[in-house]
Amino acid sequence: MDDTRKRSYLRPLDWRQGRVDMTHGSGGRASAQLVEELFLRAFDNDWLRSLNDQACFLVSSGRMVAATDSHVVSPLFFPGGDIGCLSVHGTINDVAMAGAKPLYLTAGFILEEGFPLSDLRRIVDSMAAAAREADVAVIAGDTKVVEQGKGDGVFITTTGIGVVPEGVHISGDRARPGDRILLSGTIGDHGVAIMSLREDLRFGTTVASDTAALHGLVATMVEMVPDIHCLRDPTRGGLATTLNEIAQQSGVGMRIREAPIPVLSQVKAACEFLGLDPLYVANEGKLVAICPPEVAERLLAVMRAHPLGADAAIIGEVVDDNHHFVEMETAFGGWRMVDWLTGEQLPRIC
Amino acid sequence: MDDTRKRSYLRPLDWRQGRVDMTHGSGGRASAQLVEELFLRAFDNDWLRSLNDQACFLVSSGRMVAATDSHVVSPLFFPGGDIGCLSVHGTINDVAMAGAKPLYLTAGFILEEGFPLSDLRRIVDSMAAAAREADVAVIAGDTKVVEQGKGDGVFITTTGIGVVPEGVHISGDRARPGDRILLSGTIGDHGVAIMSLREDLRFGTTVASDTAALHGLVATMVEMVPDIHCLRDPTRGGLATTLNEIAQQSGVGMRIREAPIPVLSQVKAACEFLGLDPLYVANEGKLVAICPPEVAERLLAVMRAHPLGADAAIIGEVVDDNHHFVEMETAFGGWRMVDWLTGEQLPRIC
Repeated sequence: MDDTRKRSYLRPLDWRQGRVDMTHGSGGRASAQLVEELFLRAFDNDWLRSLNDQACFLVSSGRMVAATDSHVVSPLFFPGGDIGCLSVHGTINDVAMAGAKPLYLTAGFILEEGFPLSDLRRIVDSMAAAAREADVAVIAGDTKVVEQGKGDGVFITTTGIGVVPEGVHISGDRARPGDRILLSGTIGDHGVAIMSLREDLRFGTTVASDTAALHGLVATMVEMVPDIHCLRDPTRGGLATTLNEIAQQSGVGMRIREAPIPVLSQVKAACEFLGLDPLYVANEGKLVAICPPEVAERLLAVMRAHPLGADAAIIGEVVDDNHHFVEMETAFGGWRMVDWLTGEQLPRIC
Repeated sequence: MDDTRKRSYLRPLDWRQGRVDMTHGSGGRASAQLVEELFLRAFDNDWLRSLNDQACFLVSSGRMVAATDSHVVSPLFFPGGDIGCLSVHGTINDVAMAGAKPLYLTAGFILEEGFPLSDLRRIVDSMAAAAREADVAVIAGDTKVVEQGKGDGVFITTTGIGVVPEGVHISGDRARPGDRILLSGTIGDHGVAIMSLREDLRFGTTVASDTAALHGLVATMVEMVPDIHCLRDPTRGGLATTLNEIAQQSGVGMRIREAPIPVLSQVKAACEFLGLDPLYVANEGKLVAICPPEVAERLLAVMRAHPLGADAAIIGEVVDDNHHFVEMETAFGGWRMVDWLTGEQLPRIC
């Protein structure tokens, strides 16, 4: 880039006091400056440096997957993460839940006029770090600016593209009666981290969001146990809704047990205080896996050997049920229905 | 889907009086209902019907492209289109500008609480019609809802995925001195359509947005003249900014002539009234093509034979200039600099 000429027109962005203004969404010189001084610097790759309106990449014959997620979490920064890394993890995880290896991300930013540039940089740096750690390149993007009061700081929509290994066929409609249901770790951490911050709750130690990219865990799982039937990350709507979705897609029922479902004591306490059921609280670094019974113990061992699956447990099994009900044996030995989330208990959790 | 059971919990969406509420972004039952009764019905394909969090598709070895655009146009409905079809055309065009055939789209919706469901349906139907007409499938999506006053009706971020034909190598850094610069039609229509509506201007006949998918035109162009060097759609920032971008990417200068650049008389009148220069006003259905001089006439004929290129013209040529200046010979025979857009004259135009 011809830096000399650009500098003669615009001062460098003021990362301490500067704020997003409408010119950053104009498509003109100020937009180009934001791309150059923020996005190119953070995401640093040849796709973005090419400055085309699209990114070109080579593919081999096979199956690919695409997934997209818009992120509107509030507040933007929370214990354990921020909207930046969340927008990378969330979409990478949706790609990974097909058993796929995520390769590329695109990112669309909708910024509110007046948003501090320092916060924007912090968010973009967090995205870049998350993408680098996941070995995924942010290859294309777009930035729009809306007037103050027409947005809320920053919204980020990411789309992930990945490739499915040969022999892997994972889908929400493949659960079969007899299959075992595995959960990779504690539930409710993300939702409680956000809600505690909003409500200014403290429960001894702070609960941190579990936001994490799960594709490394998934890669090990599908390599060691290729015959996994379903994978899904229980985000909005929590574990309860995810299990109901799969039950409906596969036309089966489920029976789970409360006892083996791991919940941190602080999360339990916060949920009691807030009147929430951890089964419905969002997670951002957990997955549900469903597999034939004969490989379940092996899959459990593989998951537990990975840092993101250390607390993994077999929590139940798939049953024949044309009502597609999910039922749970409680810690006290009774049975209760675990229905879909109805209404909204945790707005803007992701 | 088990419709009976779902209906026993939720009434069908009220398309006449209903409004978006926070539960539609919960990830629970109301979200599932919106997906089923709105998105599945409109976009109608097996990818969405699979109800997985990602879509799987087959690819052949070769080059693919991805592009993403967030759409925040205001107002949402305007002469010639709306945010729905615009969000399809805008992203398809970014894919097409690599000479690629667009195949798939993903869509992320950020809805404002209280937005009328009837307007949302109109927008989604318009998206679906635009995608069908372009033979592109909307294979994955996401919906979030933000509180009233934290958004502005609806924002739509789309990502397009396409495949580049063998032998086509189009990029903004390939313009060479001597190359000819072609424009596919009139400039300023989209921007003036939006601004006239916002300012309640009337100039005899209404100016309609030129929003259109250009991949059909591009397919003919690259088939008949594979040696096109650059393609770009002059959206935000207009023709002036697009030419400056390419000049900078390619390290060249440009000399264009005002006379052959087509501008509708109503657009000229509106621009004079509003104090705008049509060179900086956004287009959503036009493209700039740059090619070697020996194929320029042929390319022009190919473009003119297509309905979306009927008014195409050769507007100038690429020159050697290490300042990367774009200069224009005015209709009066003088020369002026055509600089990048500085500042923001048309906020939220796309």
